This record gives sequence, C-alpha cells and structure tokens, in this order.
Amino acid sequence: MRVLLGAVIAMGPGKADLLEAIEISGSISAAAKSLGMSYRRAWVLVDTINRCFREPVVTAAIGGSGGGGAEVTPYGREILQRYRAMEARAVAAVARDIEEFSAFLRSRPE
Amino acid sequence: MRVLLGAVIAMGPGKADLLEAIEISGSISAAAKSLGMSYRRAWVLVDTINRCFREPVVTAAIGGSGGGGAEVTPYGREILQRYRAMEARAVAAVARDIEEFSAFLRSRPE
Repeated sequence: MRVLLGAVIAMGPGKADLLEAIEISGSISAAAKSLGMSYRRAWVLVDTINRCFREPVVTAAIGGSGGGGAEVTPYGREILQRYRAMEARAVAAVARDIEEFSAFLRSRPE
Repeated sequence: MRVLLGAVIAMGPGKADLLEAIEISGSISAAAKSLGMSYRRAWVLVDTINRCFREPVVTAAIGGSGGGGAEVTPYGREILQRYRAMEARAVAAVARDIEEFSAFLRSRPE
C-alpha cells in the first residue's frame, strides 16, 4: 500500500520499514545499514516523508562525530501506526480472495 | 496491490491495465500504444503474466503484416476480474482510514 501525495510516495512499505528501523536504532545511518540501504537513500526517504506531512515525522541532529541521532516523533509514530493498521485491514479484507487467487498461480514462473 | 510469485509480479496495476487494453483493442501493440508503453515492454509483461499462471492468460498470433492479433482468454478474464475485485475490496476496507490519514498530509510536498 502506497500513500501518494501527487506523484510523491508519502508513505509505503519501504518508508514504514525505515521509520521502524530509526525507532529501534535511534539513527538514520544505523537504520539504513540494517535495511541494506545507503545513508544517502535513507536520508532522501526521511526528507520526503517530512516534506509530505504537516508536522515533523523524524527529527535528526545532523553532523557530529558519527552523525547525530535521529528519532521518530510521537506524531510520526501515530502515522506509522495508522499506516500499519491500514495495511493489516486491507490484507484481512482480501485474505480469502488471495487464497482463491493462489489456485490460479503456478508454484513458480514457468 | 501486487500479486507476487517469488520475486516476480504476477499481477499488478500495470499488468491489469494492459490486459484490459488488450481486451479492448485485440492487439498487444495497440494496447501498448494506448498506454504509452513500448511494444517490447508490453510483450515482456504479457510473457511474464503467462509464465506465472497455470493456463494461458493472453494468446497471440505472432508476426504477419502489422503483427497478429492478441486476446485475453476466458481464463485470463477470470483472473482480471478477481484481481479487480480484490483491489476494490481492499480499497473499501480502508476507505475510512484513508480519509483520516489524509488529515496528516500536506496539500502538496513542502
């Protein structure tokens, strides 16, 4: 599930995973590393998220030795929770359809 | 919504649109043109779909002047209908969440 703001993805699976990793590690660079993502890429994703929502989702202290820490704000945690709840509800709504649809699929692409 | 078979997207928004365009036009090249997609790209998508499902989804007569026609099989139409039904159910399930979530978004990225 992707939440679009015009052509920009405000929230999606990758951004949600990144926010969770920042919550756990308290750092954009550590979060990036844990997801096998470059720091630059993680920074761009965080910047995009922050530009899409009305209040800051991630706050970061830039610079310092090893870079400053970063944290997901309470506002950001609410967004993340709502996104995960939407995901779960959508999945639950189509659980039976997916089961039926699977019968049409091969076990792997031919 | 994307239906994955391993790492391969068996069905998703782009492939569903392509199948609908093939149904309407009776041709992969005309369908590709109507979606602003190269013939090569459309052909690869159709090939991927056909390799993911147990029976042919699109049948095509290759070659001839201007290329042969193509059609979505009854089996393919069933898959397309099921995919669209899943999409609609997922959207309906989160309609209220999306409305609430929208309040957190800016009107455009800052």
